[in-house]
Amino acid sequence: MTLSTKLTSALGIQHPIVLAPMGNVAGGQLAASVSNAGGLGMIGVGYGDLDWLKIELEKVKSSTSRPWGVGFITWSLTDDVFDFVMEYSPKVVMMSFGDISPWVDKIKAHNIPLICQVQSLAEALEVKNKGADFIVTQGSEAGGHGKSQRSTLSLTKGVIDHLPNTPVIAAGGVADGKSLAAMLSLGAVGASIGSRFYASTESMADNTLKNKMVESGGDDTQRTQVFDIIREIPWPPEYTGRALKNVFTAKWHDNETELKRQLHQHQAKFFSEQQSNNLDSAIIWAGECIDSIHAIQSAETIINEMVTDAKHSLENPTYSR
Amino acid sequence: MTLSTKLTSALGIQHPIVLAPMGNVAGGQLAASVSNAGGLGMIGVGYGDLDWLKIELEKVKSSTSRPWGVGFITWSLTDDVFDFVMEYSPKVVMMSFGDISPWVDKIKAHNIPLICQVQSLAEALEVKNKGADFIVTQGSEAGGHGKSQRSTLSLTKGVIDHLPNTPVIAAGGVADGKSLAAMLSLGAVGASIGSRFYASTESMADNTLKNKMVESGGDDTQRTQVFDIIREIPWPPEYTGRALKNVFTAKWHDNETELKRQLHQHQAKFFSEQQSNNLDSAIIWAGECIDSIHAIQSAETIINEMVTDAKHSLENPTYSR
Repeated sequence: MTLSTKLTSALGIQHPIVLAPMGNVAGGQLAASVSNAGGLGMIGVGYGDLDWLKIELEKVKSSTSRPWGVGFITWSLTDDVFDFVMEYSPKVVMMSFGDISPWVDKIKAHNIPLICQVQSLAEALEVKNKGADFIVTQGSEAGGHGKSQRSTLSLTKGVIDHLPNTPVIAAGGVADGKSLAAMLSLGAVGASIGSRFYASTESMADNTLKNKMVESGGDDTQRTQVFDIIREIPWPPEYTGRALKNVFTAKWHDNETELKRQLHQHQAKFFSEQQSNNLDSAIIWAGECIDSIHAIQSAETIINEMVTDAKHSLENPTYSR
Repeated sequence: MTLSTKLTSALGIQHPIVLAPMGNVAGGQLAASVSNAGGLGMIGVGYGDLDWLKIELEKVKSSTSRPWGVGFITWSLTDDVFDFVMEYSPKVVMMSFGDISPWVDKIKAHNIPLICQVQSLAEALEVKNKGADFIVTQGSEAGGHGKSQRSTLSLTKGVIDHLPNTPVIAAGGVADGKSLAAMLSLGAVGASIGSRFYASTESMADNTLKNKMVESGGDDTQRTQVFDIIREIPWPPEYTGRALKNVFTAKWHDNETELKRQLHQHQAKFFSEQQSNNLDSAIIWAGECIDSIHAIQSAETIINEMVTDAKHSLENPTYSR
């Protein structure tokens, strides 16, 4: 048995596993490792630092001959960044968080699939209407930015029901073979996976942060806006980000108005602590699924174990035949 | 193939389907119908109205010879209500929302399984330690009361990973065969299902409310406390309830302090509107999974379709073998 789906056949990859394009984490080495292991490696474009992008895009391009893609934060994307990235000829583009209208024709001109990540059924219908080839349904359990209202299981099923001819990729809650098997049983064509790859050898996150994630559990995560407020990153107000709780979130979450008022008193200390990966305030984007992450491993080991376990789960269910 | 699991074998039922014990909705007729169709019917004890309970417990007792159970709201449970209910000899007890410590020995004295519903991994470890035989992992997508921090997919997987010998039942997000199949693939032994049975023929909800649920989608639901505030039901502050949004929630959600201040100005109108099932303020507890509910059907039809579709999904996956 292979885990072939419309995702693997359309993109020419082996396994229905997409690296979530995590900014500052999913760089060239991680993306290439995921692609070389048979998944779809993705570069997280983040807020569009061209110097960083040049290094990471060169790296992925020189490190794999297999398909890889890029993920944009739609509301923050500029023509400069888009054009720069597209010169590296990614095989697929993912757009998340914002109106895709200005970008669809430009992406289609490259004759590559457009994957759109959404956080509600309404958004799924909208991006489908505007030209999405694949839809990523991101539940509130996902690490990093997203929305708080819909969860992976029901959002994914709702979109599959309403758009039966559009392949749907589940995001949020998949960190091992069983959760991948569950999403395939639900009817998804694959999963977009962040946290499990954050805690990989090739991830660009600092080891202190990776280790903290491995030691922590889903109960230790929280959707919050405080990290965007302190960094003055103008995320639209409907977005929150799931991250590990720490001293900083304990102080400021649910106290955002005061944080905004006192912003400039606290930024120097915050940024200094980020430099030293001080766990009192470190930003560790993490999904609820970190309950199932027990070690930092290579992307290849992660993918091989995940696919083996997913196959085993699907062939040997815990219920009786 | 049958969908036999540790749940079906331990309780002597046919299908791994548990009726969520919805107060004022899961009465004797619905519970008996679910049990007669091979699932586990449950009576929702709610806040313990003894007159209501007497009628519904008599009804279930006289309408099925198969196993059925009761579900208590732990923080609101009193000795009087507990003793009254237990005289009807339910075959299983579910406890949700609060510390089970005062009740465990009393339930064990009846020599029946104790099912405990939790909303976090920490709570799962706690109830296991205190004597739970089954754990229901309720995600934030579930309709009705619960918590907002954990979602079904990752909470269920996290509890399975940490308590591999305890059978886990998923709650929240299961409304059809594919979502049931997904939870079985994940390793759950069954699902606790609310909304799908709310919109059943035998549900005690008014038809106006059932129809509104069927017409609505998951995006139209919201976790909120405003319905408990206006009714002055003293839920502990960590609990919210997922319900359909309406005029009332649009006015008061995120404006709770003001609602509390003006409470007595608004209660008469609110309660009057409840009497007439006015959709401007009607309380329709509903999970995100209502995207997949398209008709009011009998519990038997719902269960038969769900089991057939789950089997079909597990035997004929969308990926290739």
